[in-house]
Amino acid sequence: MSATMESEAWLAGRAGRETWPEIQGMMEVGRMLHGRGWSLATSSNYSVRLSQDPFRLLLTKSGMDKGRLTPADFVVVDEHGRPLPGEPRPSAETMLHVVAAQRSSIGAVLHTHSVWGTLLSDVYHSLGHVRLHGYEMIKALDGVSTHDHELEIPIYENTQDIGSLAEEIAERFEDDTKPKMHGFLIRRHGLYTWGRDLDEARRHVEGFEFLLEVAGRALTLRSALPAGLVAPPVSL
Amino acid sequence: MSATMESEAWLAGRAGRETWPEIQGMMEVGRMLHGRGWSLATSSNYSVRLSQDPFRLLLTKSGMDKGRLTPADFVVVDEHGRPLPGEPRPSAETMLHVVAAQRSSIGAVLHTHSVWGTLLSDVYHSLGHVRLHGYEMIKALDGVSTHDHELEIPIYENTQDIGSLAEEIAERFEDDTKPKMHGFLIRRHGLYTWGRDLDEARRHVEGFEFLLEVAGRALTLRSALPAGLVAPPVSL
Amino acid sequence: MSATMESEAWLAGRAGRETWPEIQGMMEVGRMLHGRGWSLATSSNYSVRLSQDPFRLLLTKSGMDKGRLTPADFVVVDEHGRPLPGEPRPSAETMLHVVAAQRSSIGAVLHTHSVWGTLLSDVYHSLGHVRLHGYEMIKALDGVSTHDHELEIPIYENTQDIGSLAEEIAERFEDDTKPKMHGFLIRRHGLYTWGRDLDEARRHVEGFEFLLEVAGRALTLRSALPAGLVAPPVSL
Amino acid sequence: MSATMESEAWLAGRAGRETWPEIQGMMEVGRMLHGRGWSLATSSNYSVRLSQDPFRLLLTKSGMDKGRLTPADFVVVDEHGRPLPGEPRPSAETMLHVVAAQRSSIGAVLHTHSVWGTLLSDVYHSLGHVRLHGYEMIKALDGVSTHDHELEIPIYENTQDIGSLAEEIAERFEDDTKPKMHGFLIRRHGLYTWGRDLDEARRHVEGFEFLLEVAGRALTLRSALPAGLVAPPVSL
Repeated sequence: MSATMESEAWLAGRAGRETWPEIQGMMEVGRMLHGRGWSLATSSNYSVRLSQDPFRLLLTKSGMDKGRLTPADFVVVDEHGRPLPGEPRPSAETMLHVVAAQRSSIGAVLHTHSVWGTLLSDVYHSLGHVRLHGYEMIKALDGVSTHDHELEIPIYENTQDIGSLAEEIAERFEDDTKPKMHGFLIRRHGLYTWGRDLDEARRHVEGFEFLLEVAGRALTLRSALPAGLVAPPVSL
Repeated sequence: MSATMESEAWLAGRAGRETWPEIQGMMEVGRMLHGRGWSLATSSNYSVRLSQDPFRLLLTKSGMDKGRLTPADFVVVDEHGRPLPGEPRPSAETMLHVVAAQRSSIGAVLHTHSVWGTLLSDVYHSLGHVRLHGYEMIKALDGVSTHDHELEIPIYENTQDIGSLAEEIAERFEDDTKPKMHGFLIRRHGLYTWGRDLDEARRHVEGFEFLLEVAGRALTLRSALPAGLVAPPVSL
Repeated sequence: MSATMESEAWLAGRAGRETWPEIQGMMEVGRMLHGRGWSLATSSNYSVRLSQDPFRLLLTKSGMDKGRLTPADFVVVDEHGRPLPGEPRPSAETMLHVVAAQRSSIGAVLHTHSVWGTLLSDVYHSLGHVRLHGYEMIKALDGVSTHDHELEIPIYENTQDIGSLAEEIAERFEDDTKPKMHGFLIRRHGLYTWGRDLDEARRHVEGFEFLLEVAGRALTLRSALPAGLVAPPVSL
Repeated sequence: MSATMESEAWLAGRAGRETWPEIQGMMEVGRMLHGRGWSLATSSNYSVRLSQDPFRLLLTKSGMDKGRLTPADFVVVDEHGRPLPGEPRPSAETMLHVVAAQRSSIGAVLHTHSVWGTLLSDVYHSLGHVRLHGYEMIKALDGVSTHDHELEIPIYENTQDIGSLAEEIAERFEDDTKPKMHGFLIRRHGLYTWGRDLDEARRHVEGFEFLLEVAGRALTLRSALPAGLVAPPVSL
């Protein structure tokens, strides 16, 4: 059976898309993230892995209002980020989802586009990362059991060449000399994070966006402190 | 047939106003924009073009609470911004909607009145514009396919003489020596933007308001940065 | 007929409190203002005048969660701020509502307690007022037809002696040498504003709270501006 | 009867958990606090005392999304913070709830994790407390009848050794030489507060979070003030 026939058979076996829990879950996530201002203006995109072999990833279509997603606003892609036959055009950033979701430990990927994520990814770009330490919220990330943990969020330059960026990120996933990566920022663009399932990815988004707001307001407070108060830590 | 008779015939052919999708759409937009604090205190106004020939524009009435719009809160005007016979008084800013909606590429116009729009239109007024570059969110604007785009948002002085301002804006639309205008600010007042339809205008509002908040917070962060961090770009 | 008998007769004639539109209106206002963070922790209070002669004012009871008001959470008071027979204890600030609602042009009074109102009423207290000029939002206030209007918001010292404060405010209402007062601030406490009816009072709350946020963020931006940008006006 | 048999008998007598008002109440509190961004990423936890003798405390389970709590997301613990037989694992911070709820005047405990609480608990940590004075909102706290009250919010270092922290807090409760404690902060972590019942604890959370935002913004405004304006008080 050719790959195309396989894909068609696979899709035929998954009718009734409006009842898929993965779609209902992403529609709800979209309302929440759009409501908080982290997915405005059709920015950002979400995905959930449907199966690992063959690799099938369900992804928000390009250009949809994330506060008003419908079951028609999703596309199924394969391991090369190509839509299955009959499926619409996926987002330009599809491969960033694919490289994450191909890892067996990752079942869902969420990309957000917040004001603080945009600002922090810019201010800290020259350092290559935002580093945070000592915040209880860091324990929201999978596998972190103490606030006494140094979180490093890599920052990548924004680019229209998503293929190269996806490769760079795939290499970072494989680099065992570095601490486990729970998410990354793209400069003046936003956050990618993920989890074993959609609930965990959602917890990671909330944790990261909280920490980015804390880091941004800490920077602003820093210059305002009178003698006698100690500035919040600034990652350098 | 006189213009008045024509108008009456046109209106008679469009009964059942409570079912118009254009009205339902603007009621929903109003709840969203009021909820975000971008349309408080009956400020701002919205419009959708009903037909191009004859020109008929459906506009929010003056002084309505945008979070609680009802089908009775809209007025139909002609190409001179005059209400059709029997229609109530439109907003003083009607002609700003008309000059935009007379362009064939524009089907809906949204005006918002946010805190950041008010502040930025003031701080940058002496330069005549806010310029933004390199932000991914700029791609929310129609026809922009890369973040490597210089967005220029013109700023006009606030005035009670809406007629002159409308003429100035009409000229800017026709000025091919300048980059395409996706929206403009009125000083200490707010944003006008538009789109081919209400969904696109809504995407543009969200994109602009996001960028204005980023630009405002970037200005504030600027003075707070310790050595080693690089300030976000400030449009000058 | 004694005043007490009159009051009892009056109350008897107004059964079915759960259907009163004044109560439904204030319950909705409460959900909105609590949602925005302007009426947290049972702070703030609202009133609507039921009749002018005899003077009857319907007021939120003391200590109620404004996001969850029920028809039982209101009290009817007379022109001395005393509850009618059988009615519960009103808020300590009742007389601030009474002095406003006794004016024939005022039918509803709203008190809010926002972060920016708390801060601005403190920062500007030594001047006795916040003055704002040139903002379009000033036109949200009744009778103001141009942004070229100087709005003066008086600031009173906070006090537990509400009686004296109420007298001071009654005098300010009568002082024709001063511009019309649309609202006032109490230091480190919050805003009082009003309108001909609840809808107008609601518009005024939204307008004032917007302007207070603009004024507070303008102050913060001021110190951050690079050369070439002009600081927003600071009331002095 | 052994303690275990007693516990089993007690639980058996409380079937139909989905109808418990304590659970319905905490589910609603969770939606509100998550909506405001004070309980993101499964952070924070809530409890209500079910009975004093035997001591039974109903507590949110560890790791639940506070915006989507269900009746299955709660656990009953005894006076040692141990789950009753058959009950799931409680949060690591259970003993902080137990030491508060063992006091006869306290029936509910709420822990939140806000951006401003995180920042203020850090900036003021070296002083050991945040002190606030003169704000009307302080009257939201039980037993405070005037804004002319000095509120002291103790700050404790964050730790994984919850047992020691719980002991330290139990001692502070017993220390009559210090002013009544309405809540405390844990450094870079968040706020604990409580009340006679869930409604009072909820009022205290809203009051504290409001005051923490005021204190944080007051610090930021301080450095921005032009000559002629007076800085808000900074606790030192």
